[in-house]
Amino acid sequence: MLTPASLTGFLDAASAICGEGQVLPGPAIEPRYLEPARYAAGQAAALLRPATADEAARLLPLCAAHGLRVVPQGAHTGLVRAATPDDAQRDVLLSTERLREVFAFDAWDRTLRVSAGYRLSEINERLAPHGLMLPIDLSADPSVGGLVSHNTGGTRMLRYGDVRANTLALRVALADGQVVQLGQGLQKDNAQLALHQLFIGASGALGLVLEATFRLAAVPRQQAVAMIAPRSLADVFPFYQRVMARFPSLVSAFEAISREAFAAALASPSEAQRWFAGQLPDYALLLELSSELGADQLDLQALLQQLLEDEFGEAVVDAVLGADADCWHLRHHISEGLRRRGKVVGFDVSLPRRHFMAFREAGRAWLAEHFAPATLADFGHLGDGGLHFNLVWPATEPLDEAALREGVYALVRAHGGSISAEHGVGPQLQQAYWRHTDPAVLALSGDLQGQLDPGALLAHTHWGAAATVAAAKGPDAIS
Amino acid sequence: MLTPASLTGFLDAASAICGEGQVLPGPAIEPRYLEPARYAAGQAAALLRPATADEAARLLPLCAAHGLRVVPQGAHTGLVRAATPDDAQRDVLLSTERLREVFAFDAWDRTLRVSAGYRLSEINERLAPHGLMLPIDLSADPSVGGLVSHNTGGTRMLRYGDVRANTLALRVALADGQVVQLGQGLQKDNAQLALHQLFIGASGALGLVLEATFRLAAVPRQQAVAMIAPRSLADVFPFYQRVMARFPSLVSAFEAISREAFAAALASPSEAQRWFAGQLPDYALLLELSSELGADQLDLQALLQQLLEDEFGEAVVDAVLGADADCWHLRHHISEGLRRRGKVVGFDVSLPRRHFMAFREAGRAWLAEHFAPATLADFGHLGDGGLHFNLVWPATEPLDEAALREGVYALVRAHGGSISAEHGVGPQLQQAYWRHTDPAVLALSGDLQGQLDPGALLAHTHWGAAATVAAAKGPDAIS
Repeated sequence: MLTPASLTGFLDAASAICGEGQVLPGPAIEPRYLEPARYAAGQAAALLRPATADEAARLLPLCAAHGLRVVPQGAHTGLVRAATPDDAQRDVLLSTERLREVFAFDAWDRTLRVSAGYRLSEINERLAPHGLMLPIDLSADPSVGGLVSHNTGGTRMLRYGDVRANTLALRVALADGQVVQLGQGLQKDNAQLALHQLFIGASGALGLVLEATFRLAAVPRQQAVAMIAPRSLADVFPFYQRVMARFPSLVSAFEAISREAFAAALASPSEAQRWFAGQLPDYALLLELSSELGADQLDLQALLQQLLEDEFGEAVVDAVLGADADCWHLRHHISEGLRRRGKVVGFDVSLPRRHFMAFREAGRAWLAEHFAPATLADFGHLGDGGLHFNLVWPATEPLDEAALREGVYALVRAHGGSISAEHGVGPQLQQAYWRHTDPAVLALSGDLQGQLDPGALLAHTHWGAAATVAAAKGPDAIS
Repeated sequence: MLTPASLTGFLDAASAICGEGQVLPGPAIEPRYLEPARYAAGQAAALLRPATADEAARLLPLCAAHGLRVVPQGAHTGLVRAATPDDAQRDVLLSTERLREVFAFDAWDRTLRVSAGYRLSEINERLAPHGLMLPIDLSADPSVGGLVSHNTGGTRMLRYGDVRANTLALRVALADGQVVQLGQGLQKDNAQLALHQLFIGASGALGLVLEATFRLAAVPRQQAVAMIAPRSLADVFPFYQRVMARFPSLVSAFEAISREAFAAALASPSEAQRWFAGQLPDYALLLELSSELGADQLDLQALLQQLLEDEFGEAVVDAVLGADADCWHLRHHISEGLRRRGKVVGFDVSLPRRHFMAFREAGRAWLAEHFAPATLADFGHLGDGGLHFNLVWPATEPLDEAALREGVYALVRAHGGSISAEHGVGPQLQQAYWRHTDPAVLALSGDLQGQLDPGALLAHTHWGAAATVAAAKGPDAIS
């Protein structure tokens, strides 16, 4: 907590490190830093915008000395409030957007060492002339720090893996200001413990990510996309199995879109005629094949056409081919379409495939019984078991969101699933994390966080047990 | 340390847990448990062979209570002595070979949850009818615990990744006997910290691996292999770059074999005529393409032939095609061939590609100056930067092996490389690890090991700084 006098002293000391114009008191912070993509705005005592890794690292002990908590923020595109401060007295927002010192592309190793402030889109624009990419495909455009801290997955994860699978090394600042290089960025290296793995997906709570070294992938030379109407829900996974048996390494996306989500993504109801003559299926499937070979060597369109012909009248009743851009446009406009229909309550879960459809049915039935006004409009990455079990709630109806969330999470767990597939934990899922995580894992994780950050400087997310946090800090420490 | 009386008490107590025939005192231990694949035999106070995860976990606190150290061992194929005990008074060998309770193949998720005692070869035999495999390709045949504890890479890592990339979850016993499930085995899961990552590549020193859940890959339907003579060393990496630009996702191996290693692998000198008419190049390259598509859809032989024709007279002066089995037979018999020629001193290093050839030249020159009798016979996984910088030393000459090792490691580090690419650390590389690891990483790693195993029960490898170990345990604790 800061008194007005100590705030002035803090701002002066911070300005001495990163320059006067880069240090702002709470009331002067632009809304974009405080307003997350979903959810209400947060608040902070100050905003710091260091330009170098050295400045960023030096700010950490300064904040600790003033009894502040540091909330790192990149592009502020996350969905679990991990980058949104929430305490006007105690939270300092440390923006990494000016951390752009390093962009070291190694064409021979096909790797990129890059500062935390670069955005995914910029990285891929700069790599495109080399025929390479960081193969993370998202609707949002996070920066490196956010990508790493949330281990993002996205629509092409089944082909390229998540951020973790593509991260060879990290440079992090620990809470005491010490900068540590974890990993050398080599493809093959077992000369030390893989400590960088701990910081991937840690919601920014174990250390400040300054740089990452990524393994890059080749940009495909061709793609073939189909929007497919399966005969029934029961046909979806058997069809998926046959696709994977036929050309597993060519499948770069296997997405599902429920009828309700599909309808919401259409620009107008009349547009439905373009898809399956307006007969939207329970679940539409978006299948993408891609290859680094040219069409003269491997004709993906022909492979896809043959697959659909073989399945026609069996698992597949209709399909739209050759409208690649339209298919992806529709897929990426679901969330926006749902928001036009009411309040969206989003769940980012994943499930074992064998329980996927059972979960969906159980969830639908549970909603009908307990939250009847909800319209389920789920969609997701069936190829990797990910599901955005999103629903629309009428703006005019009261909603006990906590009960809704807990009910869905309990169902997910009962079906062997994860309550956070690709968004991470953060303050948004803090309570659910405590409720649904094995006490032994809570204990190990809390010990680890306590060791790396004994003063809880970066503890916007608490990986240890709730009781530990309450005991150490008092109940108001639990945000 | 055990007195004879306390040893008897310990053996009785251990027998009560895992059965009388599965507990043996030191002198009764069969040689295979004590003799590592390279290096001299070790020794132990006792051998324990639990049959279940529960038995294994209960043995740990028992050993701790008797002041013993536990050395876990799987198939004993490792190359850094991590599974070889070395103290007849203090070390207990805990064999995981009977841990075979779980073999849970999930065809829908394409995953396998499997107990630590299963061997790689068995796993792949059982998965073959499903067209799937654990895509780790090695000359050795380790069990699951060893695969995980050493994060093995192998010849096809550039296509499929290392063990880490294919591990979704682990079940481990901590030093206090607590069994913890880390990860749920889902493809996409960010609902907790990825603690299982810590145990991968930890040389068995942080906890006992009881089970792993692996992601599986499709078995290729076709492969095409060429043994290639490049025009010169300078052509090797530019050729590699062009191969990767042409069909990056088809390359499943890109190995290099020095002239000396090639010659050693031949069954007889006359066999050289079969390869490049006896004109062995400085570095021969083994290139393998593979695909899950049939040859009717994608003709790999034709693609490979076309590549070689395009490169012929440029980077490539000769090539042998269509002798796939012979190529791999030769590649896998290098180590055996070298052993016939003298004492083999092996280095498992990796390098950034841009420094690879410079390192090799510097290493060759340094050997000529300081260790003239050595014959360098290196080979390796050029596709991922890995290099077995092995040399043969005449049996009749004295050798200061420590000086040789330190000299090579120093050169590796000077070229930005790793002193252990895929074999791990273990007691064999303990001194080199201390010498070549950043003090900040040593401190973090030591804290972590101390937290997970405060009594150093499993500390056959010490991840913390040497000084810490010496201070805590006295110099004899450093093995």
